[in-house]
Amino acid sequence: MEAKDTLIRFLRIPSISATGEGIEDTVNFLSEIMKSIGIKTEIEKAGGNPVIFGEINVGSKKTILIYNHYDVQPVDPLNEWKHPPFSAIEENNRIYARGSSDNKGTLIARLFAIKDLMDKGELGVNVKFLYEGEEEIGSVHLENYIEKNKDKLKANSVLMEGSSLDYKGRPLIVLGVKGLLYVELSLDYGLKDLHSSNAPIVKNPCWDMVKVLNSLIRDDGNIDIDGFYEDIRNLTEEEEELLDQYDINYEEIKKSLGNFPMKYENKNDIVKALLTYPTCNIDGIDCGYTGEGSKTIVPHKIVVKMDFRLVPDQDPYKILNGLKEKLKSIGFSGEIKVLGAERPVRTSLSSEIVKATKNAAKEVYGDYIIIPNSAGTQPMGLFVYNLGIKDAVSAIGVGDPSSNPHAPNESISLDNFYKAIKHTQLTLINYSM
Amino acid sequence: MEAKDTLIRFLRIPSISATGEGIEDTVNFLSEIMKSIGIKTEIEKAGGNPVIFGEINVGSKKTILIYNHYDVQPVDPLNEWKHPPFSAIEENNRIYARGSSDNKGTLIARLFAIKDLMDKGELGVNVKFLYEGEEEIGSVHLENYIEKNKDKLKANSVLMEGSSLDYKGRPLIVLGVKGLLYVELSLDYGLKDLHSSNAPIVKNPCWDMVKVLNSLIRDDGNIDIDGFYEDIRNLTEEEEELLDQYDINYEEIKKSLGNFPMKYENKNDIVKALLTYPTCNIDGIDCGYTGEGSKTIVPHKIVVKMDFRLVPDQDPYKILNGLKEKLKSIGFSGEIKVLGAERPVRTSLSSEIVKATKNAAKEVYGDYIIIPNSAGTQPMGLFVYNLGIKDAVSAIGVGDPSSNPHAPNESISLDNFYKAIKHTQLTLINYSM
Repeated sequence: MEAKDTLIRFLRIPSISATGEGIEDTVNFLSEIMKSIGIKTEIEKAGGNPVIFGEINVGSKKTILIYNHYDVQPVDPLNEWKHPPFSAIEENNRIYARGSSDNKGTLIARLFAIKDLMDKGELGVNVKFLYEGEEEIGSVHLENYIEKNKDKLKANSVLMEGSSLDYKGRPLIVLGVKGLLYVELSLDYGLKDLHSSNAPIVKNPCWDMVKVLNSLIRDDGNIDIDGFYEDIRNLTEEEEELLDQYDINYEEIKKSLGNFPMKYENKNDIVKALLTYPTCNIDGIDCGYTGEGSKTIVPHKIVVKMDFRLVPDQDPYKILNGLKEKLKSIGFSGEIKVLGAERPVRTSLSSEIVKATKNAAKEVYGDYIIIPNSAGTQPMGLFVYNLGIKDAVSAIGVGDPSSNPHAPNESISLDNFYKAIKHTQLTLINYSM
Repeated sequence: MEAKDTLIRFLRIPSISATGEGIEDTVNFLSEIMKSIGIKTEIEKAGGNPVIFGEINVGSKKTILIYNHYDVQPVDPLNEWKHPPFSAIEENNRIYARGSSDNKGTLIARLFAIKDLMDKGELGVNVKFLYEGEEEIGSVHLENYIEKNKDKLKANSVLMEGSSLDYKGRPLIVLGVKGLLYVELSLDYGLKDLHSSNAPIVKNPCWDMVKVLNSLIRDDGNIDIDGFYEDIRNLTEEEEELLDQYDINYEEIKKSLGNFPMKYENKNDIVKALLTYPTCNIDGIDCGYTGEGSKTIVPHKIVVKMDFRLVPDQDPYKILNGLKEKLKSIGFSGEIKVLGAERPVRTSLSSEIVKATKNAAKEVYGDYIIIPNSAGTQPMGLFVYNLGIKDAVSAIGVGDPSSNPHAPNESISLDNFYKAIKHTQLTLINYSM
């Protein structure tokens, strides 16, 4: 059983959580591989797609918990793929498949790194595996699973997914994540849309929502919710330096962002904002007539979806309360629905797992990049806060800037796959010392 | 050939302008009826559904132009009709059919009133007929037709449709209409929606549109566009009195408006606002993700549909310029598309056609209600401004408060149909004296 062959077989089984396609086959395949390696394996239906838990106990005092996901994004638009998305065809030393970069490649690289260490009798740390099947649909049942399995999941450190290589081939070591609060605000004023000749005498919920939204952002662009900024932890000097080392190209970023107008032009401002500024973002507005041409109505309802990206140590539930207070104070009479709440995390630069992965990276890749936290959100908070494992890092990923995760022609380089195996092995060896 | 039988045959032919269903059959039927009555009839394809023009010249010095439409609204939701919408079934002295109230009943009542006068040799005024087939889709080609046929359409007065009976059975005489400016504002910032982890560094068009919309309304609710209110013609004392006489019931209005929160509770305030206040209304907003659950994106585009209802003598094109100036001044970089512009109208209470219809109403119904203009919009401005016929009124309609125009179970009372015939005849006799 060879790593690359197993990866290809794994990639050929669809596992689309949005539709359920192939989930069962994937779970069976993966758990069989784990068992054959000698991992004690359990499949638990946590409410949605199963969680696969695995454990290797080598009698060490230290345990590392490895988190990955086995589900993938849908493949649309299919006609933009040059090979079928589940063919896993090799071309120019790359493998093309949905899930290759996000996240099956990383999962298999780590698994075979550990198999190899076990085969050689060199695994010096206990390892637990948590593979979920709903990451691409918001990890909807993960918190529930973690809350139910706190004892089983006990560990000293957590190795999360979500890392990748930069355009110079340097691996990213990510010390944390932004948090998230996702809300849906709605105002429903009546039983039906009205003819707009009634506009002089009835209230239009769109106008009231415009006032509500406008009240959330100050003229200087800051978010106008009491206490919004008060729990933000300043970057340490060391962390500030990390930002300076983070290398991006303005023109490339702008192009990759579809030519949106940018808030900043200076590279340092962009990096600082991306990684350390919290945001209040409108994701969508649904209201009234949006078809061709004109229809004269007073819409009875408006729904606004918003996400707040939070930075350490903002608390999504505290922000939610602040938002509720704010909306109450300006007379908002509608509904606030919470669609997501995840806590931000920023692990210390001097934590054990960070040191282990950093030193291993130096050896395998010659260099590395560390950032204090990602611009996006992952369920790292569940490990740090719900399980209380402070020592958490997102590192060791097989993707690179050409990998197209979530898009057509997702792919990884086989060189990066083998480097990730080596990186995992050295990290575990460093960690166990 | 009897009026009621002809009405029933007419109602049994669908004429849905939104889909085109039955338009050709309707035009043929109606023009044959007109010819058989002795009206010189022409069918002109004005770009969309044909306009039917008719003319009777009795050698009078005065000519009255009658405007109606032969098209109807779609019939959805079909399952809420107790009889098929084009069955024209008679029940309890009412006829149920799509178009019975809006506007085929009125059209046929007027036509047979004139036939009867001709038969008796009592028609003392020249009559021209303009029947359009696109009223329910915004009279899209009417201005074009009118501009092309200015000579043919010359007349001293215009009798518009759009009137009805109030809950006491009193006919409404409407001296004018509100105008309309319909615009679509759009902001498009990029080639695609972005992951919302980019919210700290790119501009979100939704936020910029919120600022734009918020700038249009002052805290006191007034519209914040330079010169917006400056051309408004004050009501005369006589017109103010008309408002006082206009009778509505607060509870009934609120219920009929689907329980929307009302801006006013006092009956007089409601009437005054409905008929004499201009508005800036949001009809719909299309932006970003509006499906189930959460999706974290920075939408690249937002589109807002808005209508301004205007009162005499506001000019939609002047308001449009004011809006453009305003948006420019606050840095709006998007597109402004004009989807409709109609001028408001308010005819003098002492105009000839108003006097004729008012005195006729007194005789037929015992009473009447006059309002200075309707809350809604009709293409009356095309007759008053493009053709220069200042003497215009909307009067003589067969609908009543149970008629359900644009809704299932549209119907009219046969008594009201016959009264409308009588009302037309007396109006024409009064007018010709």
